[in-house]
Amino acid sequence: MLKVADIKSGSHLAGARLIRLIEDNDPDAVELLKSLYPHCGNAFIIGITGSPGTGKSTLIDALIQEFRMLDKKVAVIAVDPTSPYTGGAILGDRLRMQRHATDRHVFIRSMASRGRAGGLSRTTKDAVLVLDAMGFDIIIIETVGAGQAEFDVAGFAHSIGLVSNPSSGDGIQAVKAGILETGDIFIVNKSDLEDADICFNQLEAVMEMKKRAKNSWQPKILKTIARDGTGVEKLALTFLAHLEFMKKSTLFEQKQKELAQQYFYALLKDLALEKIDGFLNESNQIKTALKDIEQHKTDPISAAKKMIDTALLFRKSSNC
Amino acid sequence: MLKVADIKSGSHLAGARLIRLIEDNDPDAVELLKSLYPHCGNAFIIGITGSPGTGKSTLIDALIQEFRMLDKKVAVIAVDPTSPYTGGAILGDRLRMQRHATDRHVFIRSMASRGRAGGLSRTTKDAVLVLDAMGFDIIIIETVGAGQAEFDVAGFAHSIGLVSNPSSGDGIQAVKAGILETGDIFIVNKSDLEDADICFNQLEAVMEMKKRAKNSWQPKILKTIARDGTGVEKLALTFLAHLEFMKKSTLFEQKQKELAQQYFYALLKDLALEKIDGFLNESNQIKTALKDIEQHKTDPISAAKKMIDTALLFRKSSNC
Repeated sequence: MLKVADIKSGSHLAGARLIRLIEDNDPDAVELLKSLYPHCGNAFIIGITGSPGTGKSTLIDALIQEFRMLDKKVAVIAVDPTSPYTGGAILGDRLRMQRHATDRHVFIRSMASRGRAGGLSRTTKDAVLVLDAMGFDIIIIETVGAGQAEFDVAGFAHSIGLVSNPSSGDGIQAVKAGILETGDIFIVNKSDLEDADICFNQLEAVMEMKKRAKNSWQPKILKTIARDGTGVEKLALTFLAHLEFMKKSTLFEQKQKELAQQYFYALLKDLALEKIDGFLNESNQIKTALKDIEQHKTDPISAAKKMIDTALLFRKSSNC
Repeated sequence: MLKVADIKSGSHLAGARLIRLIEDNDPDAVELLKSLYPHCGNAFIIGITGSPGTGKSTLIDALIQEFRMLDKKVAVIAVDPTSPYTGGAILGDRLRMQRHATDRHVFIRSMASRGRAGGLSRTTKDAVLVLDAMGFDIIIIETVGAGQAEFDVAGFAHSIGLVSNPSSGDGIQAVKAGILETGDIFIVNKSDLEDADICFNQLEAVMEMKKRAKNSWQPKILKTIARDGTGVEKLALTFLAHLEFMKKSTLFEQKQKELAQQYFYALLKDLALEKIDGFLNESNQIKTALKDIEQHKTDPISAAKKMIDTALLFRKSSNC
């Protein structure tokens, strides 16, 4: 049985085991997480997102290197199904991260992409708590930016880096998807490709248009070539500068509160959905309703509304 | 006020208006949807998914053409944030679909990507019902395949086409993500690129390994070049062959039941979550709990469990 001390010691074995138990929804893991919570809140959590193929994994690999040179302990959680960290032999040749394998201050883990309540899985946040308690200074969450992920990761991280490529027209896509509001650092990776300057200038122009309030962080735009490490030191330092900036004001404290609140909401929804599932599985009402719908005695919308209205009740008092 | 007859007439204006009302969660739209439900169930629903950049939009454009030659009325819902159908002027040059703009038997609509209860939005399914009632023979749902979408769309469609490219290593990614179980037709698009045969053969080898039960549909692998239409006629015919195959056995009926059930579950969860949200917003318990967590009087997991356990009740009887 794992103990708080095992996790706090920073043991990779213990950490990996606990994260696995969390993924399996093991009740012991939940108990342990409760006890770990007071030991959390020290890590700087970075979200890295972008479309598949923009080079997020290579960039993170290079970022780890830079953060290690600054003597930071770094953990990575990849919630990107196309990231190369898992898959064993089949993707063996892509396992660039191998070079960090012997460094006990680097921990890399892939996780299933999406949770039952939508968006980034709550288990991802649970895993972040584990890594935080393990004593990692920096936790990087890699998500694939296709749709919702850019927004999701904002509920998990202190600082968001958005990776695009010169040729991908991501500048325009970003405007379209409203992503600009989310990002703290815009990274034009593969900036040795043609059109890098055009992309950079587009982003800059848009950013200028959308200047944020005076006392808030003004997003930075950086060029990198992850493959050979160009610009990655500056990127690492810019992430740390963002942290400093937040800590100098009340922004960091505020962000911590926001993240705690979002985690609490996610927990509530997950637990509520679990309870609903349990109820639905036990209940004969579903079968009856589905038969009624099939026989056109009712439509699904009316049937669902009736079921929820009659079955789901809330007790208003907080003392029971 | 929109009426059933307006939608059944196939009017694009009425259909677009209703879908907009659905997105706005308008109560009138919900009422109308209820009345439309008995008029649905005639359309063949196709899901097209794949990573960004694999050419899904160009392929769908060519597919529309082929289906129109077969005199099928076609509607497209793009739930892919990178698809070029929306965005007005900013993406004007990418609006290839323009050529179908004057054809009243072609209807194309983009929708927000993800719903509150996770996965493909229930409003997407609502929109499919509208298009179904409008009399479209074929409804194509385009989703971006990064993570969950491949699985989600299986709950929405009768037939799933998975688009990959020769160079994208998608064959291997597919194995990894367990996508092979979901797809009915595997489309190697941009098959004029190098390595097309390697990709095709990889997919074929994997498919051979994972043969399905005797009476079920054996997935097909097809090569296309969407840009010039190569292979797209065959693709259109293969989708229709899949439909025929299902209709000849009980598979289609079974699938219809599954889709109806999934829709009903989605409705139940959405309604339940709405009710929970309402409760949470009214309740002071959240604020108290968050303060307790902040002051380390409790951990969030215990606090959430206590709140849900005391507040969320189910009535077991079905007659109230």
